[in-house]
Formats: sequence, C-alpha cells, structure tokens
Amino acid sequence: MEAYQKRIEAFLDRTLDPEDAPVPELIAAMRYSTLGGGKRLRPLLVYATGQAVGAPDAALDAIAAAVEMIHVYSLIHDDLPAMDDDDLRRGKPTCHKVYGEASAILAGDALQALAFATLLDATAGVHADTRLGLAKELAHAAGIHGMAGGQAIDLASEGQSLNVTDLETMHRLKTGALIRASVLLPAQAGHADAETRARLGTYADCIGLAFQIRDDVLDVEGDPELLGKACGADSLLEKATFPALLGLEASRQRAAELVDEALENLQPFGTEADLLRFLARYIVERRH
Amino acid sequence: MEAYQKRIEAFLDRTLDPEDAPVPELIAAMRYSTLGGGKRLRPLLVYATGQAVGAPDAALDAIAAAVEMIHVYSLIHDDLPAMDDDDLRRGKPTCHKVYGEASAILAGDALQALAFATLLDATAGVHADTRLGLAKELAHAAGIHGMAGGQAIDLASEGQSLNVTDLETMHRLKTGALIRASVLLPAQAGHADAETRARLGTYADCIGLAFQIRDDVLDVEGDPELLGKACGADSLLEKATFPALLGLEASRQRAAELVDEALENLQPFGTEADLLRFLARYIVERRH
Repeated sequence: MEAYQKRIEAFLDRTLDPEDAPVPELIAAMRYSTLGGGKRLRPLLVYATGQAVGAPDAALDAIAAAVEMIHVYSLIHDDLPAMDDDDLRRGKPTCHKVYGEASAILAGDALQALAFATLLDATAGVHADTRLGLAKELAHAAGIHGMAGGQAIDLASEGQSLNVTDLETMHRLKTGALIRASVLLPAQAGHADAETRARLGTYADCIGLAFQIRDDVLDVEGDPELLGKACGADSLLEKATFPALLGLEASRQRAAELVDEALENLQPFGTEADLLRFLARYIVERRH
Repeated sequence: MEAYQKRIEAFLDRTLDPEDAPVPELIAAMRYSTLGGGKRLRPLLVYATGQAVGAPDAALDAIAAAVEMIHVYSLIHDDLPAMDDDDLRRGKPTCHKVYGEASAILAGDALQALAFATLLDATAGVHADTRLGLAKELAHAAGIHGMAGGQAIDLASEGQSLNVTDLETMHRLKTGALIRASVLLPAQAGHADAETRARLGTYADCIGLAFQIRDDVLDVEGDPELLGKACGADSLLEKATFPALLGLEASRQRAAELVDEALENLQPFGTEADLLRFLARYIVERRH
C-alpha cells in the first residue's frame, strides 16, 4: 500500500512540473492540493485492480493520476465559500484559503483538463480503442451522470429531509461514480471479460457506499486531529447523513454488510485480488 | 453562417437533454448559459475548416459542441464574483446571478466533462487514433498550456503593467488556444497534411488575436446595447488592453494586419475556404 502511495505521489509530482508552467501561481495551487497528502484511495484501487486483472503496468500510473486529479479538483471546488466553505482539508488550509478563490477555481478547472490530458497522453502502450474507452468512462464518471450530478443533488438537498434511498443515490453519483471508475478503468485496460467487470463494478459500488457511511460515522465520532478537519460539519450544514437517518450502530452494521458483499464478489479471484480485499476492510476500519 | 448557427444550437440542445439529468437544477444552469445566444465563433470555425479540408460531416457537430462547451464553461467561471464579477453576458444575467454561485461553479465543471464525453462519444465514424488525437488536442487547449494557463496569467497580471508582448502571450493562451483548437481539430478529423495544418494554425493564431483586439476596441467604443454587457469594464478592472497600450487607431490597424496575414495563409485554398475568409473579415468588422 505504501509503495503504491509513493509511486502515485512521484508520478503526480512529475506530471505537475513547475518548470513547465506558463504561470507559477497556477501550478503552485494545483501542486498544493494534489501533492503530499490524502489516503490515495482511488489510485490504490487502480493499482489493486490492475494486479487482480493483470493490466499492463504502464497504463496504471496514468489512470491512477487521472482519477486522483478529478478527485482533487472536486475537493478544491467543494471547499469553496460558495459550496461547503471549508477552511481545512487533510490537516492544512484549503486551496482558496492559501491562493485565493479565483486561483482555486482555476486550479480545479486546470486539474480536470490535465486529468484527461494525462489519461490520453500517458497510456501510449495501450491500444487506441481501449484508450478511447478509458477516456469515455472517465468523462462520464466526472459529469452529470456521475460526480457533478451527485454534487448537484447534494446542493439541491441541503436543508431538505432526504430518505436513505435518496441519500444512497446521491453518494452513488457524488463519490461512487469515481470510485467505480477507479476499478473499471484498470479492468478495461486489462481487457477483463464482462463477468469480471460486473463483479468488480459491484465490488466498487459496495465499497464506495461503505466509504461514505464510514465518512459520516467519523464526522460524528472521529478524532478531528486524525481527520485533519473539524468534526460535526455535516450536522451544522444540516446535511443528511447515514448516522442521522439510521443511527450510529445501524450505520456501522450497514457498512460492514457492504464490505462483506464486496468481498463475496471477489470470490473467483485468487491471491492476485488480496490488495482489493485489504482495501475493502481498510475502508470501514480506518480512523481517518 | 446562420445555417451553421442553427445546426450547432440544435445539436447542443439535444446533447443537454433535460429529461436525461439526475437533477434538474444542474442541467437548467448548463442549458441557460449554453443555449440561445452567442456568436458561435468557435463552432463556425469548426464547420468552416471542415468545409475547407473536407472533414467527415458527422464528426464536426461533436467537435463544434465540444469546443463551445469548453468556451461556455470558461465564461461561466470567468463571470463569477471571485473572478471578473460580471452581472451581464450576452444581454442576460450571468449564470451565477440566476442560479447562484455554487450551481454556476458546478455547471461549468459539468460542461467541461461533457465536452470530453461528447467529443469521445459522438465521433464514432472517425478512426480511433484520430479520435484520440482530437481529445488530446482539446485537453491541452483547455489546460495549463492553453485556456486555463492564459486565465491564470490574466489573474496574476491584474493591476500590473503588461507590455504588448506579454498581453499577446496572455491572449494567445486565454482565448487563442481554443480558437486554434477550433481549426486544428476539424483539420485533424479531415486528415489535412502537415503544411495545411500549419497554414490553418497560423490563420487561427492571427484571427484569435485580431478577435481579442476587436474585443478590447469594442469595450472602449462599442454600444453596450449591441454588446449585451457594460462597456469600459477593462479600464475599471485596470486590465491591460490593446487600446490602452497602442491607442485605438493603432489597435484597429494591428487587427486589420492580422486579418490580412490570416487571409494570406488561405491562398492555396479555393472557394472551399470562403467561409474561413468570411469569418476572418467578420471578426474585425463586427459591432458586438
């Protein structure tokens, strides 16, 4: 896990080359939010799935970097005053707190473009049809039927009373779509068959939702020091959460069941899927 | 020209299908800023270049829509209070004035993703290698070495005294890169040879800069009614402009010279490039 975290850090560091920028402020803001932090859950899923399906190693860095850059851009924009208005992220001031709102908006915009550029440039060893498929899958995961759509549901539902089904739909798009892409892109790069892709897709849906439930639980009972951000923000913003709708104990239970379902879907795999299994368990056991 | 304006309007209208959205607010904000207005300069350049090089008709709609969606997303984000803080665009209230800042940020984000999705989905008649090339070119035109980079230079230079060279560099990235893409993408789809692409690239660079000079001139002497926005905004924001650096008459002269240079580069073409010639002249003659 640590080896892969170092590997994606190094790849992102090379991709966001400060020497290569027309204006230092922009690349500085992009580097500030992208480098040196985070669990790197999405890149880890990319590498773990790559292992499980035997995807060509060369394509995995580009895929991992692309999904992480989409994720980071969404965090930068999410944290803006007009959105969640967060001051802290991963234990340090948010992008707009350091570089100003205008630069934070731009840094997010540029990261989205760079995600596509990286995915299209750095997968040269892969067949053109497959590379097209990867870029399409990412574009859809990031857009109205994926992350941006989920974010819009989140916005529209603030102060409203969502039920559990609506809450799950929102998360399935807002965070689930990109987590799903983190598994389906390497599966596609490894030419996994339809059944394998369906199993991996279900695995991703289960751990994506479990991840979100764990996030909500940690927002209630977590340690702000470990989390690198304030707790209780969800209830302050009157956001619907799993603990608020189900209670804490039932939320933990639901997350555990989802992880079991994720693991069941990995049954046909041997030890090559052990990192995927580890990540599923890690998601509900993590303290931050 | 009008036929193509109607054609891109209809294609964008179908692409931004309100029935197809997980949340109505998001697609409404995207449709508000994308449909029913604008000169459609970039789509017109796509169709005109497609004519000149004989590119397959089916690919042109997707390319035209993709560059226009990137353009519209940049306008939505540019108009935000943290950026240029504009209330009017194309004669109507800006996106954030109608839908709020959060939705405007999201609508821009989703339009960028949709631009890539559309370009990758709707060019199915084109060879995979070419489609990859189109998506790459667009990603680079939108990113740090293109539009986002130019926007960052613009931000960094507010209140600073730019010289003409720096001002041209800024515009070459901020608006020039996407105008260049509007010509180079259809050229690539039509498998134009290297010399033709070089000529079309120079044509695009010249008219891109001429367009910007004309914009600056209109901001000084234009009719706010025709422009659909307030005039004099540049000097209020202490932005460097061509009229401020060169004077009005020399700015007009420079724009005219650039259009001549653009037209010279079209000399090897016959009547199939007449729409490109028309657009070059239109750019410096337009009143809005």
